[in-house]
This record gives sequence, C-alpha cells and structure tokens, in this order.
Amino acid sequence: MVLDNVRIVLVNTSHPGNIGGAARAMKNMGLSQLVLVDPVRFPDPEARARASGADDVLEQARVVATLEEAIADCVLVLGTSARDRRIPWPVLDPRESAGRVLEQLGETPEAPVALVFGREDSGLTSEELQRCQYHVHIPSDPAFSSLNLAAAVQVLSYELRMLWLSEQGQPTKMHKIETTAIHNEIPATAEELEKFYAHLEQVLVEIGFLDPQKPRQLMPRLRRLYGRVQLNRMEMNILRGILTETQKAIGAPAAGERRR
Amino acid sequence: MVLDNVRIVLVNTSHPGNIGGAARAMKNMGLSQLVLVDPVRFPDPEARARASGADDVLEQARVVATLEEAIADCVLVLGTSARDRRIPWPVLDPRESAGRVLEQLGETPEAPVALVFGREDSGLTSEELQRCQYHVHIPSDPAFSSLNLAAAVQVLSYELRMLWLSEQGQPTKMHKIETTAIHNEIPATAEELEKFYAHLEQVLVEIGFLDPQKPRQLMPRLRRLYGRVQLNRMEMNILRGILTETQKAIGAPAAGERRR
Repeated sequence: MVLDNVRIVLVNTSHPGNIGGAARAMKNMGLSQLVLVDPVRFPDPEARARASGADDVLEQARVVATLEEAIADCVLVLGTSARDRRIPWPVLDPRESAGRVLEQLGETPEAPVALVFGREDSGLTSEELQRCQYHVHIPSDPAFSSLNLAAAVQVLSYELRMLWLSEQGQPTKMHKIETTAIHNEIPATAEELEKFYAHLEQVLVEIGFLDPQKPRQLMPRLRRLYGRVQLNRMEMNILRGILTETQKAIGAPAAGERRR
Repeated sequence: MVLDNVRIVLVNTSHPGNIGGAARAMKNMGLSQLVLVDPVRFPDPEARARASGADDVLEQARVVATLEEAIADCVLVLGTSARDRRIPWPVLDPRESAGRVLEQLGETPEAPVALVFGREDSGLTSEELQRCQYHVHIPSDPAFSSLNLAAAVQVLSYELRMLWLSEQGQPTKMHKIETTAIHNEIPATAEELEKFYAHLEQVLVEIGFLDPQKPRQLMPRLRRLYGRVQLNRMEMNILRGILTETQKAIGAPAAGERRR
C-alpha cells in the first residue's frame, strides 16, 4: 500500500496525548508509519487513551534521538511551519503537499517520504526546517495561527487520503449526491421545515395513510425527499396550504386551530 | 465576514476537552459561532485548557437543550455521519460540503448555515440525521473510521477556509513554490544530502569563502537551493566529486581521509 511509505515524524513532542491523537488521525486516514524524535513522555497511558484504538500505530512507532536519524533514508522531506521565516523557502499548502508526496511515491514507490511536525509550543527550529525540501503551511487565520499538533497531522493525512482515493478511482463518499435545489428563492428555515413535517405527519395519520403503530420508514423517507430539494418559502406555503385544505376536506380541524 | 454565518453545532458532547479542541480548530480556521446542544460537562477547565487561547469562542458559545433549537433559523443544515444508514441520504465529502456551504452563503449571506457533529461514541441519531439536508462523510479508512470530534471539526473547518481563501483570491500559503525537480532519476536521500552539506561547508571554510565566526545566512541559502532542486544520486556524486577535487587543488586533505 503506497501510503505505508508515508512517515509521520513528530519532533520533541511534550504532551503524550498529542502523540495518541496523531496516531488516531493517521490510522483514520490509512497511514501507519510513526517516528518519534526525542519525545518528552512516551510510552504513556495518555497517548494510549487519546489513540482510541490506534494502539498498533503507537506500538510500532519508532523512537529515535534526532531528526537526522528519523529522515535519513527519505527521498522527500516536508516540514510544517506556522511562521514566516527570514529566508523564504518553497512553501506548499496541505493539498499541494499531498500532490508532491504522491507524485514522489509514484516515481519511487519503495522509498520513504517524511512529513515532519515540530514542538507544540515552538514548532521546528530553523535548523530542522532547513533539512526539509519543502515547508508546509496550513492556511490558518493569521490572528490565531497555531494548530494543535494532532489537528495538523489530521489535516495533512486527510489531504493525502483524499488524493490517494481519487487516484485509485475510489469514491470519497458513500453515495452520489442528487440535488435539485432551487436557488433563487428565500429558502425555508429548519424550524419552518419541522412545522411542515409535523403538519404533514398529522394529515397522513388523519387520512389513514400513516399508522402510528406501524410507521415503517414513511416520515424519514419524506424528510429525505423534502430536505434534499431545499424548499423555498413560497413552496412551503403552498405545501402547508395543501395540507390545511386536505384537513378541511376530510372534516378534521385545521392545523391553525389545533396546534398551539 | 461570511464565515461568521457558519455555525458549528456539537450535540451532547461527553468530553469537555473535545469542546475546547473544536473551539481551537474553529478559531484557527476563522470560524467563531459555536452552539452546544446539551453538553455533558460545560463549562469546564478541560475545555478551556484544550482551547489554548480560543477562549472567546468558548465564552460566546450558546448552550441549548435540543438540536431543533440549535438549527431553527438555519437555511442549510449538514450533519456528519460515519455510518452507512439504511436509508441512503445525499452525502457530501468535506470538500463538497464546503462548496455547498459557501454557495448558500453567497445566495443568502445573512442566513446562518449549520454543520452538526454528533456524540463521541455514537454520532448523531437517525432522527437527528433526518433533520439535516445533507450528510457529510469524512473519507476515513473503513477499518478504523471514527474520527476524534475535534479532528472532524478541524477537517470541515479547514475545507471551508481553503475554499473561502480561494474565493477571496487570497493565497493558501505564504510563498509561491518554485520547483525544478528532475524526476526520472533516483533521488538522493536526506542522509546523502547532509553529508554533502557538511562537505560543502568544510570546503567553503577551507577556501575562505565562509567565515565560521560570521557565517551570515550562507548555509541556509545553499540548503534551500539544493533542497529545492531535489538532487538525484548522479548529480550528488558530481557535486561531491567537485568538492573533493577542490580540496585536492588547494592542498587540503580529501573529505574521505578526514571525516570518520
């Protein structure tokens, strides 16, 4: 599996919870190779707890003393960087990073590629960043730019998986979207929709189409249908009008008189 | 700001740390509107700790009793779902979700839009999912599919920011990439590169070009240059050969005789 040659390298991590969170994020996205450079506390029960079942990633994690050792055999090394450095370096966003990584794995499938993440408080040092061919910048709000370590691993692993799935011709979701939204109208709010569903259900019971004792999947199916078309306010009024008129026609009290 | 109308709704969250992590992820990506439906523990010092400075998002968070209340005024509601449900629903991946959300905000800029996230252990109920027009599926590994709650918020918020930046014509990274990689060759490893840099630095000192007392930014600049072109092994041999020959020419001992 090509993603098995993607190595996640965490440098000098302080909080074992973040190591666990990173392991979980990796496994969620189909990555498995974790290398820890001089972790402050590892192994640790907190890492295990936050890994939430990604224990195999933690158990197979390699612990080394230096970044040099962690990336020695890698043909491509990308390092995450939050800050603008004095010397500009080639910078990729997470999507471009995934593209560069999978391009490399396409050319040299047997050679490992590393994504390097720095310390929680201070990131990677200038010296460490200089060992990376590219810097990766996650486009955060400049006013609050520092992501949690596991969150940063999540974003980069997610981009790798998205691109890998698409290169495999695999879908990124389970079902195709079918949408027939009508867009140039004021859409109904969720509250209006709920009132409509309640009214509809009531009428369906009154007309004997819906048996409250055996509802089957009727309301869910109707919700899906109306939810998908994204009703506008005018259409909503029409549908509500139809329901009220139906009630009048069968001699039931109108909705307005009964509800609230 | 258009992203101020994106509401993150967390339903019945068990662990306050996840609420804090979600708040941090939101603020990193420029989101601010958090609504908590019936949280198990909130406010809580753990939420504050994990928020790491996104205290304003937590303080402004609205706590409500039901999902209905949280989304009443929303014109578009998307709910995250890990599982394949019996009744298929229109499903979007995170990137499509961002597209749908920003499309909606383009049409109705004043109307709120909600992204709904379920419980850590069991997600959203079928009833809750039926209140959503779309389900969002993060394309995780089917063998280990359940993301941490804050990680899921991070992925969706990240996709929103990426698309929002691109729609604003803003860059997603700080510098343009310039790459002239030579691709049909065996690339040098990081270890080989390090040996080369060490050899280069030594020669630069020997030839009097680099003053170890006043190194300026010489080595970082050279590292950036060589890192960017992604040397292949043959080029590396050539460069090392040049250095060795230079040393011979100035009468210094060759690298092989001095190092190790």
